[in-house]
Amino acid sequence: MAELKLRFQSHNLPLAHTFTIAHGSRTQTPISFVQLQWGTDVGYGEAAMPPYLGESAQTAESFYSSLDFSWVTEPSDLERVLSYVQSHSLGNSSAKAAIDIALHDLHAKRLGIPVYQLFGLNPAEAPQSSYTIGIQPLDKVHTLLPNTDPFGLIKVKLGGDHDRQMIDLIRDYTDKPISVDVNQGWMKKERALEEIYWLKERGVVYVEQPMPKESIMDMEWLSQHSPLPTIADEAAQRLTDLFELKNCYHGVNIKLMKCSGIREGYLMAKLAKSLGLKVMIGCMTESSCGIAAAAQLASLADWVDLDGHFLLANDPFEGLSFNEGVVQLSQLNGLGVFPKHLTWDDQQWQ
Amino acid sequence: MAELKLRFQSHNLPLAHTFTIAHGSRTQTPISFVQLQWGTDVGYGEAAMPPYLGESAQTAESFYSSLDFSWVTEPSDLERVLSYVQSHSLGNSSAKAAIDIALHDLHAKRLGIPVYQLFGLNPAEAPQSSYTIGIQPLDKVHTLLPNTDPFGLIKVKLGGDHDRQMIDLIRDYTDKPISVDVNQGWMKKERALEEIYWLKERGVVYVEQPMPKESIMDMEWLSQHSPLPTIADEAAQRLTDLFELKNCYHGVNIKLMKCSGIREGYLMAKLAKSLGLKVMIGCMTESSCGIAAAAQLASLADWVDLDGHFLLANDPFEGLSFNEGVVQLSQLNGLGVFPKHLTWDDQQWQ
Repeated sequence: MAELKLRFQSHNLPLAHTFTIAHGSRTQTPISFVQLQWGTDVGYGEAAMPPYLGESAQTAESFYSSLDFSWVTEPSDLERVLSYVQSHSLGNSSAKAAIDIALHDLHAKRLGIPVYQLFGLNPAEAPQSSYTIGIQPLDKVHTLLPNTDPFGLIKVKLGGDHDRQMIDLIRDYTDKPISVDVNQGWMKKERALEEIYWLKERGVVYVEQPMPKESIMDMEWLSQHSPLPTIADEAAQRLTDLFELKNCYHGVNIKLMKCSGIREGYLMAKLAKSLGLKVMIGCMTESSCGIAAAAQLASLADWVDLDGHFLLANDPFEGLSFNEGVVQLSQLNGLGVFPKHLTWDDQQWQ
Repeated sequence: MAELKLRFQSHNLPLAHTFTIAHGSRTQTPISFVQLQWGTDVGYGEAAMPPYLGESAQTAESFYSSLDFSWVTEPSDLERVLSYVQSHSLGNSSAKAAIDIALHDLHAKRLGIPVYQLFGLNPAEAPQSSYTIGIQPLDKVHTLLPNTDPFGLIKVKLGGDHDRQMIDLIRDYTDKPISVDVNQGWMKKERALEEIYWLKERGVVYVEQPMPKESIMDMEWLSQHSPLPTIADEAAQRLTDLFELKNCYHGVNIKLMKCSGIREGYLMAKLAKSLGLKVMIGCMTESSCGIAAAAQLASLADWVDLDGHFLLANDPFEGLSFNEGVVQLSQLNGLGVFPKHLTWDDQQWQ
């Protein structure tokens, strides 16, 4: 009788460029990779843990180590395995996502199909991805702008000291559509509205998390008055958050690391659409493994922001390609990616 | 290049016994069957249309006839095809369910797997089904009671003139657990609560739709005071109804014919669980085709009520079996059922 076996490894992956948002700066990012094995089949998963979200390699490893899959007799029963993982502890949404992603990879490989086929989706219908420019010293912006050339949409992190100058510099370079992500950086709704009107004039298409996630009444006012769609990011983590935010935002940024994986990400996208909310599929700074997982759902999105793997100096997974601004899945089964320069020989099975 | 082709046929299927609920009586039930073909693969679906829900063979046929699948180049893109079906008209939830069911059958057959594998579910974990006894003249109840022998749970329709006598007659026959379905039949919350206390003493395990669906405040009061779980049926049709009812009921009866098919039924079950609601998977009077579709989701349920095919005099589909009170899916791909005495030769393709 086969067993569902788990092993994992943690890394601080160097970034291609120092990345700054309203929460802080970093030059590397903590990621853990997991492997789930059943017989001769293997599924891969990833947890990306930007420090401001409260998870770390230590919390993820502690979570993985506490899991007991010895009772699993049929790994295709995703519902039961993932219900166990969900209820095993509070929080740990990235570590849960790693297990969820690996189990979907394993399940689809065993069925001989790509993961998106499980959901009846067609990745050929995915919108173009944006490419993200963090908060930058103005004299550095020009060195980053050529990175945006292959992309159809540029996402700019605002909430710094020179937001308008950043936008002007980008507008001098290209007339491509821009989206902005304020990461809760604006404190007054009147100022936020003024900025949004200014941004709309410059060809900005949506505004992500303009105000603090706690500013519920202000966000309701702002969304009623805003000439651009407002998108909840920090304000929306999980499925049951969607009803409360439907009067405060026009859409939601769904990230697998926030919502604990592909399964809940799918449910969030479908529920958001039922509620009339716009759907954005986003990511943290993560490898092609996590990006491939999110890309399975990309055809459900109005906007896609899957550029995390481009922000790494050396992506440990491969299999994704990029064409006309769209992240392309390979023709392989499962997630369609495989480890490039990760070795698993030293890792202990649980 | 293959085309997605549709054909359909309508029937008034005779019932094994006259069936009476608070809405009325009938001896037959209108059902339409659909067939979706892609190349050499065929999927089957069903619409069951009890007259009080506003659909009929005529409305279903009119809906099917208005569909245009000539643009479909890839039937595995369920999301796109079903989004088109959903937005094609308002209402028509049973006719939409028939298309949804047939497309899932076709998709899973083309992948070479049962439908439940798409959702990562395991039908071996499904609870026992109940068997339904309609409102009966008291002197007829004893003739129906032997039908309940293979079942682990008896469901009784209340809201007639002799509810307590019905329960007493069943209790004289068996000590199996009973569930009751009032179909909105109780008008006063204090009387409803009194009945529920009386029913709890007799081994009743839940109460379905005790009061009119419009009685929102009364249901909130009743659910707060009720010693048994209350389940919404008529009050909950679609996914977006769940948030409003979560304070008024303890659970929801999900039926594919109300919610437009397997895809939304799955979403409703998952969202209900996330909201802390109990999940019941139910049915109309329908053939093994519709029952097999609902049975794909049965392992998500706390309670299952999939007995519609047993209420027909002559089920036109086969493939389901029944063991220890649980509806059993076959090992076949797709829904696991096939037409028994339906012929399709005279039906025109759309």
